[in-house]
Amino acid sequence: MFHCFSSYLIKSSRPKPWSHIHLIFGGFAYRVSAMASDEASLRKVVEEKLSLVDRQADTVRKLKSGPAGKAEIDASVEALKALKLDAESAKKQLLAVAGDGGRKSVEEFRQTVVNTLERKLFYMPSFKIYGGVAGLYDYGPPGCRVKSNVLSFWRQHFVLEENMLEVDCPCVTPEVVLKASGHVDKFTDLMVKDEKTGACHRADHLLKDFCKDKLDKDLSLPPNKVAELKHILAVLDDLSPEVLGAKIKEYGITAPDTKNALSDPYPFNLMFQTSIGPTGVYPGYMRPETAQGIFVNFKDLYYYNGNKLPFAAAQIGQAFRNEISPRQGLLRVREFTLAEIEHFVDPEDKSHPKFADVADLEFFMFPREDQLQGRSAKKTVLGKAISTGTVNNETLGYFIGRVYLFLKNLGIDKDRLRFRQHLPNEMAHYAADCWDAEIESSYGWIECVGIADRSAFDLKAHTNKSGVNLVAHEKFSEPKEVEKLVILPSKKELGLAFKGNQKLVLQALEAMNEAEALEMKASLESKEEVEFKVCTLGKNVTIKKNMVTISVEKKKEHQREFTPSVIEPSFGIGRIIYCLFEHSFYTRPRTADSEQLNVFRFPPLVAPYKCTVFPLVKSLEFDAVAEIIAKSLKEAGITHIIDTTGTSIGKRYARTDEIGVPFAITVDDKASVTIRERDTRKQIRVSIEQVATVVKEVVNGQSTWEDIMWKYPSHAAAAASTDAE
Amino acid sequence: MFHCFSSYLIKSSRPKPWSHIHLIFGGFAYRVSAMASDEASLRKVVEEKLSLVDRQADTVRKLKSGPAGKAEIDASVEALKALKLDAESAKKQLLAVAGDGGRKSVEEFRQTVVNTLERKLFYMPSFKIYGGVAGLYDYGPPGCRVKSNVLSFWRQHFVLEENMLEVDCPCVTPEVVLKASGHVDKFTDLMVKDEKTGACHRADHLLKDFCKDKLDKDLSLPPNKVAELKHILAVLDDLSPEVLGAKIKEYGITAPDTKNALSDPYPFNLMFQTSIGPTGVYPGYMRPETAQGIFVNFKDLYYYNGNKLPFAAAQIGQAFRNEISPRQGLLRVREFTLAEIEHFVDPEDKSHPKFADVADLEFFMFPREDQLQGRSAKKTVLGKAISTGTVNNETLGYFIGRVYLFLKNLGIDKDRLRFRQHLPNEMAHYAADCWDAEIESSYGWIECVGIADRSAFDLKAHTNKSGVNLVAHEKFSEPKEVEKLVILPSKKELGLAFKGNQKLVLQALEAMNEAEALEMKASLESKEEVEFKVCTLGKNVTIKKNMVTISVEKKKEHQREFTPSVIEPSFGIGRIIYCLFEHSFYTRPRTADSEQLNVFRFPPLVAPYKCTVFPLVKSLEFDAVAEIIAKSLKEAGITHIIDTTGTSIGKRYARTDEIGVPFAITVDDKASVTIRERDTRKQIRVSIEQVATVVKEVVNGQSTWEDIMWKYPSHAAAAASTDAE
Repeated sequence: MFHCFSSYLIKSSRPKPWSHIHLIFGGFAYRVSAMASDEASLRKVVEEKLSLVDRQADTVRKLKSGPAGKAEIDASVEALKALKLDAESAKKQLLAVAGDGGRKSVEEFRQTVVNTLERKLFYMPSFKIYGGVAGLYDYGPPGCRVKSNVLSFWRQHFVLEENMLEVDCPCVTPEVVLKASGHVDKFTDLMVKDEKTGACHRADHLLKDFCKDKLDKDLSLPPNKVAELKHILAVLDDLSPEVLGAKIKEYGITAPDTKNALSDPYPFNLMFQTSIGPTGVYPGYMRPETAQGIFVNFKDLYYYNGNKLPFAAAQIGQAFRNEISPRQGLLRVREFTLAEIEHFVDPEDKSHPKFADVADLEFFMFPREDQLQGRSAKKTVLGKAISTGTVNNETLGYFIGRVYLFLKNLGIDKDRLRFRQHLPNEMAHYAADCWDAEIESSYGWIECVGIADRSAFDLKAHTNKSGVNLVAHEKFSEPKEVEKLVILPSKKELGLAFKGNQKLVLQALEAMNEAEALEMKASLESKEEVEFKVCTLGKNVTIKKNMVTISVEKKKEHQREFTPSVIEPSFGIGRIIYCLFEHSFYTRPRTADSEQLNVFRFPPLVAPYKCTVFPLVKSLEFDAVAEIIAKSLKEAGITHIIDTTGTSIGKRYARTDEIGVPFAITVDDKASVTIRERDTRKQIRVSIEQVATVVKEVVNGQSTWEDIMWKYPSHAAAAASTDAE
Repeated sequence: MFHCFSSYLIKSSRPKPWSHIHLIFGGFAYRVSAMASDEASLRKVVEEKLSLVDRQADTVRKLKSGPAGKAEIDASVEALKALKLDAESAKKQLLAVAGDGGRKSVEEFRQTVVNTLERKLFYMPSFKIYGGVAGLYDYGPPGCRVKSNVLSFWRQHFVLEENMLEVDCPCVTPEVVLKASGHVDKFTDLMVKDEKTGACHRADHLLKDFCKDKLDKDLSLPPNKVAELKHILAVLDDLSPEVLGAKIKEYGITAPDTKNALSDPYPFNLMFQTSIGPTGVYPGYMRPETAQGIFVNFKDLYYYNGNKLPFAAAQIGQAFRNEISPRQGLLRVREFTLAEIEHFVDPEDKSHPKFADVADLEFFMFPREDQLQGRSAKKTVLGKAISTGTVNNETLGYFIGRVYLFLKNLGIDKDRLRFRQHLPNEMAHYAADCWDAEIESSYGWIECVGIADRSAFDLKAHTNKSGVNLVAHEKFSEPKEVEKLVILPSKKELGLAFKGNQKLVLQALEAMNEAEALEMKASLESKEEVEFKVCTLGKNVTIKKNMVTISVEKKKEHQREFTPSVIEPSFGIGRIIYCLFEHSFYTRPRTADSEQLNVFRFPPLVAPYKCTVFPLVKSLEFDAVAEIIAKSLKEAGITHIIDTTGTSIGKRYARTDEIGVPFAITVDDKASVTIRERDTRKQIRVSIEQVATVVKEVVNGQSTWEDIMWKYPSHAAAAASTDAE
């Protein structure tokens, strides 16, 4: 169900087998206000009751397919109904708490958020006046500022903090690069076509939808059928086009909407193809990820880093995937911004000098074992996950910790964030370990950051394809003595013996591995000659003692050459931003006077503007004060907007809340002004000279709003009335 | 010669007719150190002497083709030789001043800059391990930081300062949008193919090179031939494929390198084409500019701005041009970053409230008249250029001023920056006025920012194509009475008279313009009937008085509807950065001990890091101090690197100078450190507690280095010695 955006997931941009498990519950887990203390326990109750429903449904099915009598079956169905009612009631309780008076369904909640986002131009469908294009979105003014704040913070938190080498490579990529990376051959989804309309669908989506629907609605399914459908969902990722096609035929699955017959599934490459230069003979693609631009530059970057490991390179940029039928708004798009890190490390030493900085962090982790055994994610101390071997190595763990801090600081609710380890069938064969940062949204758990130890795969692939040796060296503090096998064929003797075949025999001798060579050496010493198979000739030849000298020599080596491993945290910026929108959104109880109830509780770090300046009424005097304040805010580097419309102050507060501006300065006097905080709606009064300093202090996090409230006189009397004006 | 990147230049990405004029001199105008005071006058001398050479060459040609005797011709040739020698000597003098001891040719200078840039990974050819792709470059670590600083400053200087509405639209663009904008049909260059190898060349480039070469080298050309070639260069932009092809044939121009015959020229569209979605039936392109994303969102943005004009929208993003044969490094590339502003304004009021802020600025302007009359650019006060009507309107002028400030603050040498007005044949028919910010580099004058008043062209084009009315309204303070023509055909009478043709007649009547309708009204009143041509019927019909009522009614209008004009400053970020590299580069006289002589004098605003921290010698104590300083720098928001390699301090200074870091902090004590400024190489001593504050003060521009030098004790003794260590 979820779209993967990092290079290790060439195959698994297809749904993960477990995704349906979490969707059932995930759907109700959104919230529209701050986390209530008893919400977590209510969620647990709902989850348990839903699992009881599930088990009872299994029982009903078994009874129906067995020899049980009607009475027994009826009783069992009644019990199921009761359990369902019970679960529904628990869900409602949860909603009453989590919904904070909203009591909307997940879809209603999402619709409210999306409506607000589109109406305030956080984002909107691209090329709308031409009917739009599925999977393409524009960020409008406030969204664009949020995005640029998120990217600035990313650069600060990762690139600058860790002295990473940032690069900026083109999106247009020649075929050879993506041939080496495997994308040309394997970056595909299986597609079926509506045989009449030609409309395209993802084959796995159709099969998944069918299985889930059947399991949800058909209680009379016999147990073997249930098991079969569940099995399909579990292995969906691994099905071949043939099996997928056979299942679609067997179940009589037709095209959604039209109900027409479907073609056989065939792979569709998800890259946008183009042609570089005017001749038309150099195919190119729009990159599906930014990582390859770093790998092909490894040699230069390693040199730039003084030929030392470890080091990390990073890149922020656009990536492209020509999705078959994109849905889910900002979560599955055809063009998106990625921020990727490739941390190169000696495979023999994956420790991290700064791991201690993150070792004490505690957050939800969801290791492979817990997933396989049906347990849920649990709060884990990161240091323990390393010491117990749950996470493969310190460097991987360090990045998991840093990603956690990054998302938390952005304003992602830490209770709706978990790190999920890849199951064996999700992970590429070469990967040492992979964890996804998943954020819960109204669409369920969304993979937003992939953190993978990809071993030496990428550098080796490009070494093989380009012939340029992408390796690192470790200089020994003192030379090491090593034994080295030397095979020295005699061209003259081989020529005499094998004439035209001389070269092939010689190559075969040189290509022997250590064991073969030592065996030949022993044979020649004991028997003077030996039978030797030359594959390229397709036959055995006789090698005599004078034809080759095999010896073991002692050599001093001064360094070790190796292909570095790479640890890759890969961030889907649009997905993170969308989840942030949902986590930040809440509605304020409607009053008789106030029209606007939607608020984004963005932290100052990501808020599109840090504050607004309002003259209370239209007056030249107040406008002049507003200008003075604007100037001092600009000097303090605080982004702001001035709203001099004559609208009521209450409406202006609502407008500023709706785009998530944390502070509003109202000019109601020549000497002092009020500052209102968005979420508490409390106000303080400060002098015009102090206002920029105060805002800067709280925006930059040197003080909290509570500290500020202590220091300055509150403006309590007017707070409620102006807000509701 | 120069590549244009903004939307108004659909046609003229081909060379401008005047470009050769400036290249002749432009080639020597680079400099490798600060502007010497007498350099400007020397440049003038060289320019004059070169023009004397040019005139004398004309004389020689005339004599040779006329009835003049050998003696006269010989004398004239001798005079030409003497003038040439004279000009050469003046050039050398100029180089001696401008070259600051370097005395390198332009190409040598460029090679030194480019070598340094590539060696330090400011930028490098993309996909190098696979042989690279022409026209694609990567920014490496320091280049990437420079680019991100330039973009941050752009956002600060334009978007935040002017409260612009920033948007972020996809690169993948459906065909209909670029059909409306004209790119699908007109965004082409004329191409010829090598008939044997299939290699592609720009037809106009080949013809231009031929003409210039002939004019430069063949002194025996008859005057009519000279005039012909000069005329071709002047109208190169406007030549049709047929004429271009005929000229190539006539002059016997062959493929460069191979000397093979060439095909006829044909248009090649410069957009990278692709296909959106899996069906293959929706063509799309990688956008050639970011502007269209703004135009198609006009309606939403206008609403977001409270339905008020003027407002500006802005976008930073990648754009793509599939160049036929890219040369000139970062200046002509196939993928580049654009930053574009679309300022929407009432066509009846293009004044700008903040124009006074820039009116007193004085810089080089090069109006159309001066270009046509062979004069050179001259320093002009912007306010005067507006009051004399040289620049079309205040808003255009305001942006010219803001662009000047932007480039100057980045570190572009203001004496090598000019604003050149487009000649009539460069400008689109709909444009009101266009000015390019051109920066002089080793490649000549480079168009880096285009500032155009595009009138209502773009919004009208999308209104026509999409059917969505992209207009603005001006509410009148009180309703205006207007006369309105009302044509009211009588369906009944028309039906009786024309039967099946009724509808076509009715449509023709309704489609009359005001003059036609008034004439018919008068005729009907005097003659009762009138002959009327119905084009769709292909014949005249007789209209009688009872068939149509034509009247002029008075109506009250409350608002005026109009299509806004758009003023578009469009920035080629890569070009600006490359010119900045050249303008910032200088070489320091070589000494016996110092190896590294290259320096980039970036202002702190764009420098990849603001300072470096060096422990003088390897010691745990100094390393600890360095860490303390690094922490305080980070808290102050100062980007920095720590260099703890054991290399000599002189080498470390050289390394930091070479990537343009303005300040180096050397830890040589536990209580205090030295700060060295890159260009003066002067050092001061400050306490460890003060160091971050001092660096911040000078980096943020609150103090100059001179101020700082006054305040703190200098560290003079060691300055020279450590630097040369």
